[in-house]
Amino acid sequence: MSYLKERILKDGVIFPNSVLKIDSFLNQQIDPKVMEEIGREFYDHFKAEGVTKILTIEASGIAPAIILASHLRVPMLFAKKAKGAPLKGDEVYETKVHSYTKGTTSRVCVSKQYLEEKDRVLIIDDFLANGEASLGLVDLVYQAGGQVVGVGICVEKSFQPGRRRLEEAGIAVYSLVRIKEINSDSQEILFEKGH
Amino acid sequence: MSYLKERILKDGVIFPNSVLKIDSFLNQQIDPKVMEEIGREFYDHFKAEGVTKILTIEASGIAPAIILASHLRVPMLFAKKAKGAPLKGDEVYETKVHSYTKGTTSRVCVSKQYLEEKDRVLIIDDFLANGEASLGLVDLVYQAGGQVVGVGICVEKSFQPGRRRLEEAGIAVYSLVRIKEINSDSQEILFEKGH
Repeated sequence: MSYLKERILKDGVIFPNSVLKIDSFLNQQIDPKVMEEIGREFYDHFKAEGVTKILTIEASGIAPAIILASHLRVPMLFAKKAKGAPLKGDEVYETKVHSYTKGTTSRVCVSKQYLEEKDRVLIIDDFLANGEASLGLVDLVYQAGGQVVGVGICVEKSFQPGRRRLEEAGIAVYSLVRIKEINSDSQEILFEKGH
Repeated sequence: MSYLKERILKDGVIFPNSVLKIDSFLNQQIDPKVMEEIGREFYDHFKAEGVTKILTIEASGIAPAIILASHLRVPMLFAKKAKGAPLKGDEVYETKVHSYTKGTTSRVCVSKQYLEEKDRVLIIDDFLANGEASLGLVDLVYQAGGQVVGVGICVEKSFQPGRRRLEEAGIAVYSLVRIKEINSDSQEILFEKGH
């Protein structure tokens, strides 16, 4: 069993409506041992893909993305949630990302100078649920005319439509852990076979 | 000359009012080679200090903080900018951080469960200018009853009062690069001796 899965079973906190909180080691407090494992597994999977850039979204995607970037020796870029009007003279690609948990829609952007037509971009994020963030990042890459090599996810909730939506858009999804079911009543987590 | 300093001289963009933009390698697009150097230098300086936790603030502090955390083998924690009212049941330490560049004041918080009285906390951030973010993080550690081992900064603008304010509060500051002057007219950057 992977160390990430072990930590999910040991320290994950289950709330009503299949909400799983794993911010004691993945996305507020971060265990560097978990990150090392994540970086190695992504590296093994994507090392032959000719990745030129890693793209993620602030804030919780940054840690796994930079660890992987140091393995792949390519730059890492994080999209920002835009606040207020765009800064004057700031040339950005911008897209919209809806959060089902928060019920809000954010504008997300990256500087145009850091995404290029020649880029082969690997998108990394901590969670995949409805796929909104990943689809938004794909849109940013496409606006720049670049290619998306794939999407690498630390923890996928496979009972939500994120993977299907990405695959329907022709994007390969690679998740380190795939959760089939979170039972808030029995406090159980079931994983997909082999994940 | 350090690689970070080289990159500042090569790729830093100077705007009016001594504004230096280095987001092509430090805080939007991130060069993993810069991060490796930063991680190693912080590690060499702080390895004997008995650090139990690294604290930073989202988003641009996360990359150097997690790289250092993997060297020191301690958890990394990032404070979040609070949006809206605190979530019900979320027990957080909270403080206020003023941004002179944006002219706004943000509420910044961390979960109480991740900062403890026994913690010896090293604060890491990308930039030090007025010291507002670092002083806010120090306040969060003190609220938890913990100790601050020091503040580690990638790029310090030593012509601004951040270092003085932190030192007056009894906090040791260690900066990898110290910029003495940014001349927006002549487009020159002067460094402090030895930095």
